[in-house]
Amino acid sequence: MTGTLYVIGVGPGDPELLTLKAARILREMSCICVPKGREEGSSLALSIVKGALNLDGKEIIEAHFPMKKTRRQGARGKGQGINPSGHAVFDDELDIKWNETVEAVLSRLNKGTDVAFITLGDPTVYSTFFYLHDRLLEIDPALTIEIIPGVSSINASASRAKISLGLADEKIAVLPATYVENLREIFQNFDTVVLMKVHRVFEKVVEILDAMSLTANAVYISRAGMEDEKIFRDIKALKEEDMNYFSMVIVRK
Amino acid sequence: MTGTLYVIGVGPGDPELLTLKAARILREMSCICVPKGREEGSSLALSIVKGALNLDGKEIIEAHFPMKKTRRQGARGKGQGINPSGHAVFDDELDIKWNETVEAVLSRLNKGTDVAFITLGDPTVYSTFFYLHDRLLEIDPALTIEIIPGVSSINASASRAKISLGLADEKIAVLPATYVENLREIFQNFDTVVLMKVHRVFEKVVEILDAMSLTANAVYISRAGMEDEKIFRDIKALKEEDMNYFSMVIVRK
Repeated sequence: MTGTLYVIGVGPGDPELLTLKAARILREMSCICVPKGREEGSSLALSIVKGALNLDGKEIIEAHFPMKKTRRQGARGKGQGINPSGHAVFDDELDIKWNETVEAVLSRLNKGTDVAFITLGDPTVYSTFFYLHDRLLEIDPALTIEIIPGVSSINASASRAKISLGLADEKIAVLPATYVENLREIFQNFDTVVLMKVHRVFEKVVEILDAMSLTANAVYISRAGMEDEKIFRDIKALKEEDMNYFSMVIVRK
Repeated sequence: MTGTLYVIGVGPGDPELLTLKAARILREMSCICVPKGREEGSSLALSIVKGALNLDGKEIIEAHFPMKKTRRQGARGKGQGINPSGHAVFDDELDIKWNETVEAVLSRLNKGTDVAFITLGDPTVYSTFFYLHDRLLEIDPALTIEIIPGVSSINASASRAKISLGLADEKIAVLPATYVENLREIFQNFDTVVLMKVHRVFEKVVEILDAMSLTANAVYISRAGMEDEKIFRDIKALKEEDMNYFSMVIVRK
């Protein structure tokens, strides 16, 4: 019998934000697969789980993903970016890394061992897990995959900053701050705009906020709920060293 | 010493989706305030907590909120909808109900008792708690309020349907399906659109999806993770009786 793959959102950073379900399943698992990107060279997801649970005696599979070019080609139009075998086409280096992880996970599942794949925040919000998901199902469409939702960094950041993301009939937009050219229109049409990965284009974002008289409506939150959390209600007071990958700006009209 | 108000997201329905933090704080509290809307006449948030914890001996304050007209007036422009005392103006019936809850919560806090206010899903996502938040701070700006994030019904629904809400640089829009007139534009500009409260305007939404050849990209999820969960990948197979307040449509291009 093939094992089940549990994809588990471990929340945004505070080990206490693991769900009861995540904690129970992780306790039951003998094998945990951990994504490991460039960020600080260690897995934040694993350190969150270790903050809540004793993992002694469990097998830990480290999945190294260079954190770049993770756009799924072919996602935007039928046929495009799909190679003749029907697999999505990836950047070469990433492709090799993903295949290693796919093989490691499948070999355990095929022996009947359940595997937990842990992912920061919630698995459905900008988690690279979904690349793995598609590949695994291409190889074995009968695979049992269960996704356990977690607290997303967006909700945790809004909670820490005490901002409602939406009330009643309000509209919320979530976007990586790479679409600066559309930003004015989005600010006009939405009540709340969450800008992810904002460190990349921070100056341009401030320029647009200023031009739209929205600077006072913006809050910058970095590493919500973690020991080195930072919240800036005056985003112009932000310095280069305050910015990092785990940050966002929430603009609430 | 004034007590602390803990606003706790209890997740979308499955008691195991409570966080460890929510469970710990709720165990420590002697007083729990529970919103109770018209939906089925009982509090879903309370039944979730009861599914995970023993609440014997705790005081339960029921806060009755008629679930209507919860738009915060004055939220869109300075001065509008604010009465001379500086308080937001509400629909009369709601106003009385909210004031009763505010008084009940404040009287416990002023005695030095901590209070937990539980809310479905995540407190920052369409939770009426934020009306209470603003009122409480108007009366006592020094009040300590801690917001404990939870798993949002959006993330839980996406997990159950195995849909990624966003990958890499993709854009996500979340909106109550009351803005049907703007829907085409939003479908064009966003990779994923989450339509909340879709039961109200379902036929109109299907019409727009059809016109844009997006019907096959839509999934309907009702009561994600609960015993009577329903997932329709063919949204045209949906019948009137399949629809309810705790449902959404996720459209993924």
